[in-house]
Amino acid sequence: MSSTYGENLKLSIFGQSHGPAIGMTLDGIPAGLSVDTEKLQQFLNRRAPGQNAYSTTRKEEDRPEFLAGILNDFTCGAPIAAVIHNNNTRSIDYDNLKVCPRPGHADYPAQVKYGGYQDVAGGGHFSGRLTAPLCIAGGLCKQWLEQKGILICAHISVIAGVADDPIYLDWVNPDFCSIGTDFPVTNPAAGQRMQEEIAKAKAAGDSVGGIIECIITGLPAGIGDPMFGGMESRIAQIVYGIPAVKGLDFGSGFSGSYLRGSQNNDPYTITDGKVQTLSNNAGGILGGITTGMPLVFQTAIKPTASIAMEQNTINLDEKENTILTVQGRHDPCIVPRAVPVVEAAAAIAVMDACLSAGIF
Amino acid sequence: MSSTYGENLKLSIFGQSHGPAIGMTLDGIPAGLSVDTEKLQQFLNRRAPGQNAYSTTRKEEDRPEFLAGILNDFTCGAPIAAVIHNNNTRSIDYDNLKVCPRPGHADYPAQVKYGGYQDVAGGGHFSGRLTAPLCIAGGLCKQWLEQKGILICAHISVIAGVADDPIYLDWVNPDFCSIGTDFPVTNPAAGQRMQEEIAKAKAAGDSVGGIIECIITGLPAGIGDPMFGGMESRIAQIVYGIPAVKGLDFGSGFSGSYLRGSQNNDPYTITDGKVQTLSNNAGGILGGITTGMPLVFQTAIKPTASIAMEQNTINLDEKENTILTVQGRHDPCIVPRAVPVVEAAAAIAVMDACLSAGIF
Amino acid sequence: MSSTYGENLKLSIFGQSHGPAIGMTLDGIPAGLSVDTEKLQQFLNRRAPGQNAYSTTRKEEDRPEFLAGILNDFTCGAPIAAVIHNNNTRSIDYDNLKVCPRPGHADYPAQVKYGGYQDVAGGGHFSGRLTAPLCIAGGLCKQWLEQKGILICAHISVIAGVADDPIYLDWVNPDFCSIGTDFPVTNPAAGQRMQEEIAKAKAAGDSVGGIIECIITGLPAGIGDPMFGGMESRIAQIVYGIPAVKGLDFGSGFSGSYLRGSQNNDPYTITDGKVQTLSNNAGGILGGITTGMPLVFQTAIKPTASIAMEQNTINLDEKENTILTVQGRHDPCIVPRAVPVVEAAAAIAVMDACLSAGIF
Amino acid sequence: MSSTYGENLKLSIFGQSHGPAIGMTLDGIPAGLSVDTEKLQQFLNRRAPGQNAYSTTRKEEDRPEFLAGILNDFTCGAPIAAVIHNNNTRSIDYDNLKVCPRPGHADYPAQVKYGGYQDVAGGGHFSGRLTAPLCIAGGLCKQWLEQKGILICAHISVIAGVADDPIYLDWVNPDFCSIGTDFPVTNPAAGQRMQEEIAKAKAAGDSVGGIIECIITGLPAGIGDPMFGGMESRIAQIVYGIPAVKGLDFGSGFSGSYLRGSQNNDPYTITDGKVQTLSNNAGGILGGITTGMPLVFQTAIKPTASIAMEQNTINLDEKENTILTVQGRHDPCIVPRAVPVVEAAAAIAVMDACLSAGIF
Repeated sequence: MSSTYGENLKLSIFGQSHGPAIGMTLDGIPAGLSVDTEKLQQFLNRRAPGQNAYSTTRKEEDRPEFLAGILNDFTCGAPIAAVIHNNNTRSIDYDNLKVCPRPGHADYPAQVKYGGYQDVAGGGHFSGRLTAPLCIAGGLCKQWLEQKGILICAHISVIAGVADDPIYLDWVNPDFCSIGTDFPVTNPAAGQRMQEEIAKAKAAGDSVGGIIECIITGLPAGIGDPMFGGMESRIAQIVYGIPAVKGLDFGSGFSGSYLRGSQNNDPYTITDGKVQTLSNNAGGILGGITTGMPLVFQTAIKPTASIAMEQNTINLDEKENTILTVQGRHDPCIVPRAVPVVEAAAAIAVMDACLSAGIF
Repeated sequence: MSSTYGENLKLSIFGQSHGPAIGMTLDGIPAGLSVDTEKLQQFLNRRAPGQNAYSTTRKEEDRPEFLAGILNDFTCGAPIAAVIHNNNTRSIDYDNLKVCPRPGHADYPAQVKYGGYQDVAGGGHFSGRLTAPLCIAGGLCKQWLEQKGILICAHISVIAGVADDPIYLDWVNPDFCSIGTDFPVTNPAAGQRMQEEIAKAKAAGDSVGGIIECIITGLPAGIGDPMFGGMESRIAQIVYGIPAVKGLDFGSGFSGSYLRGSQNNDPYTITDGKVQTLSNNAGGILGGITTGMPLVFQTAIKPTASIAMEQNTINLDEKENTILTVQGRHDPCIVPRAVPVVEAAAAIAVMDACLSAGIF
Repeated sequence: MSSTYGENLKLSIFGQSHGPAIGMTLDGIPAGLSVDTEKLQQFLNRRAPGQNAYSTTRKEEDRPEFLAGILNDFTCGAPIAAVIHNNNTRSIDYDNLKVCPRPGHADYPAQVKYGGYQDVAGGGHFSGRLTAPLCIAGGLCKQWLEQKGILICAHISVIAGVADDPIYLDWVNPDFCSIGTDFPVTNPAAGQRMQEEIAKAKAAGDSVGGIIECIITGLPAGIGDPMFGGMESRIAQIVYGIPAVKGLDFGSGFSGSYLRGSQNNDPYTITDGKVQTLSNNAGGILGGITTGMPLVFQTAIKPTASIAMEQNTINLDEKENTILTVQGRHDPCIVPRAVPVVEAAAAIAVMDACLSAGIF
Repeated sequence: MSSTYGENLKLSIFGQSHGPAIGMTLDGIPAGLSVDTEKLQQFLNRRAPGQNAYSTTRKEEDRPEFLAGILNDFTCGAPIAAVIHNNNTRSIDYDNLKVCPRPGHADYPAQVKYGGYQDVAGGGHFSGRLTAPLCIAGGLCKQWLEQKGILICAHISVIAGVADDPIYLDWVNPDFCSIGTDFPVTNPAAGQRMQEEIAKAKAAGDSVGGIIECIITGLPAGIGDPMFGGMESRIAQIVYGIPAVKGLDFGSGFSGSYLRGSQNNDPYTITDGKVQTLSNNAGGILGGITTGMPLVFQTAIKPTASIAMEQNTINLDEKENTILTVQGRHDPCIVPRAVPVVEAAAAIAVMDACLSAGIF
């Protein structure tokens, strides 16, 4: 059940990088929710490649065709289905991957698991391209949550060790969220230095990784469930479904584990009947359930595995060590394009929790 | 569906801290797997409180009674059910929690979600005590995995900023795993300093947190599924069900996001037909699927929320700010007791993935 | 996942007939629902054996102990757990079942599936005794549905070919439902003849089966989902989980398949704004979704497999045909005791659908 | 979660009758299973309309386009996705359905559930047209099961009260199964009379229903799980997802409930080490688990709800009774076309159970 997510919504993602189409079905969405396809397209464009110097020069059309579930710009209660047809022809770039697996890619474990039947072209079902249908589902959920006053924004927190300003506690910038940019940072100078680091890595035939911070505002207290249905579990399951994600923490997270309880606990305060905490080390979640403070998490993106430099690998046919040069054009840093993907994943998890909580 | 986990096994956890009993049901386990109840008890004892200076002085009997599913020390194919009866009487310690929520606890969001009907005594269903039935299920899975050569060991990686030696790459110490200790570190000197930090925090009426590292050896390549069924997603969903967990990363994780691709990629090598990687920054997982290298993850445990110091909170009835002193005896650091809990969670996730992969 | 049911509630049933205890966990129930344990006990007593001439003379105490999820007679939001301890000692009646399987029982397929590790005593996990925890869960759901005006009543429709009066269209008898009887028929004379047939079969060392009709009133239109989430699918999955059920149809069901469309279609009519149908051949369900008319289904119960007469079977050790005489005391007809079980199963399915529909 | 089915496979069906496309995704299928698309097309053609006198004269192209999951005629391990594009333009036939619901259709409950946002054209998501993607999934599963020696065949058991010969016990006719016909009966004379009844109903502007019997041979003993995971529950959940199904029983089913235990129990016999039963009233299932005998079930199909005759209905806007004449071309009997649909549903359920049992 590799590619199915959710409790009260059921998301199913399908497709291979160079197959006829990629797409998604999304079941369990109530009827009568409005859909702004133009706004969705703007969201998808944030993920699309080929837009600037630090992403791949491949040009993909990520324009979804809705096959079901939406009628006259409203959900009709039936499962939503959308596809993006692939125009890239099956290239010769990937012929060798079953025999000489690329370091850092799924080639080798896929070969073991699928016994050679897997589709290797462009990474097949493991390709970052599969985040496009994730963004269709997530972009829709993001719209519906916005209609309830729940905003989801992410920014580049770190690239190549260069840190953006933290947005930790009560940062809310709806313009930032809704407009988006192709390099979303809150501190432009930091963003400039990040781009310089990306350029340096690219020039060296190498790649860099980073960290994305995501903040969700407007969530009422009381959403989520204890134990395995907690907001952390719900978000983690889907965020770890994004290729290249290798870390995730909530609120003060790993750094909070270095604090004392008196520092990490968030004291409550009440003003005009409104309950808040003076800090938000909990990241808006206690016992798996939202506190009403912004939900905040950070996610670590590994450096792009596909690099131009020569790498050591093996030849599984010859059973010997060999040298590999990965062909094709690849992002020297996928972090900027991963920002909307993280927002999409968060939106799906939050939408599902809200459906369970009787919102909508 | 707060308290249900799994795909081919279905774990259900129930109970409140001061209710009549806590327990678990575990469905989907094949018949004919042997059960060593003495070994399970030793495992549960590692989690039990009241054993030493740095844990609470409460004394709990964590002796499970098996009600179903096991016959003559073998699984019989029917769902396994076990309970631990609570001997603690309902104390007066917790009477005030609905009105004056404790910072860092689930009291406030639970009050909002359950409208005052929740069981607050001892933290109710949110109590760390619920990790005891998790350890019953996980202790059983750990045994069954061991019978297939799959070993799961965790150690204290950091407490209060004091770091144990990393066990990163090819650390395998079956003795360490099977024997366990009440303060599992690989570097005794570091362990000594950690205990000093715990004592200091306790003396100050405060608490400390830390990081647990877990390593799983013996997993063949090809286990797990792409996207939301990946090993990271499977492990994350259950590990985040452990109270106080606020962070999780795999392999090089967050630190890997600071590296370049050429540093973070793990080059393959083959020796006598055996495929390995020279490093293990992937933590044994690529594309969600095991590589055959040790599966490694780190999890951040926040400092114990219950501290003796006065804290700012609110009175929800009076709608005013107030001062709270948390009553009761509490661990100044739960990290040592959380080590077997992390092993248990990992064992359940891995067992489920192995069932899906046709192992067993 | 043999013993887990539900979408927004998760029911898990455990236990073996002669094991230490049988029980259930029920997750996903909102906090604040009131529980009348005395009324639940009356419901459970309808299922209990040993009450009259046509049921087994075994005497079982079906008094549930609630371990979790209920506090001061209200649900507290945590999973509900209850057990019934078995007082029956492990008898010698069943020693032979792995070698000489009883016709009509699960002995042989269980032996193949579980390889001899299954618990055969009293039928193990396949025993009709497992319907007791089903009735705990269902009895609770029945109470909660009643609080919303949704009533569930079943009666004996046929035993041994003797038919009760049909209750087809707009039969609503809350007294009948709430009081219940140990032989629930609407036509006492028919009930008398049924009991005579049971007595005759018993005297012959044989058994009889029958049909139970269940009617659910007060369900608003619009509950359920299309395709596999339809009310028929939801009810069928759980009703077929009752041992001895071999048939199920809704509304006019099998007999409706002999009609013409003009006869089987239910014409709509509207009176004072209230929409109804003039007939109810649909059994209150169209397209899987409730119409607002009573939901009606019939379920076929096979004659008790355990009979006193000699039967042909095999000896799996000797690989030869042999003659078996089933030991123990058995109901010559389980249909009367199955009536509350059918109500319980229906209540769980309807409760789950109502949770999905935002009722509660 | 209306349109999602399965445990180890996950089937998701999408589409509305007159929407851009209908389709399905099927996740959880192992890599390396061969796919014969020509054979699949022959299977789909059995369901397609417009082929003869007793079906609608609409002509639909049910030619699936595979978007994912199949590579070079083998499954590649990634989710399988297929669509059928709709060529029918949105007609004016259905404009009135929100206001004046058709008797016997989902129009009215859908209007209540979806508040007018549902797609009513051609029945929308409730259309029998949605059985085409079900047949894509089922046709594939049927192929894979055949490769393991498991054959699934259904025939028309009854139409308009005219009965075909029963195929009850050990009927196995692989030719019948694999070739299929557009009017699958075992007794041609009975088939002739059925067709006469259909013609009569059609001439009267009316419709007829019937019963389909399905038999599955080659299933080993030990497949399925107790309680809610039994073969009856698994098959029932999906078969009741087929529009117009209102009844289902297994083996002797409803008629068996009129028998005595001594008649209904199936005595075991052993010959050359092979265990069989002398009768098969259990329909190949005991305790939810296969016995190794043919799995047999009957399903009741209601008469087509769309009839040419005038019918009583209501006008929801005017809140008054009115007369409706259903427009469009409709099958006077859908039973023949439902035969492959029942086979498809059975194949999916059995495939899922076989995956859970480690077959494949």
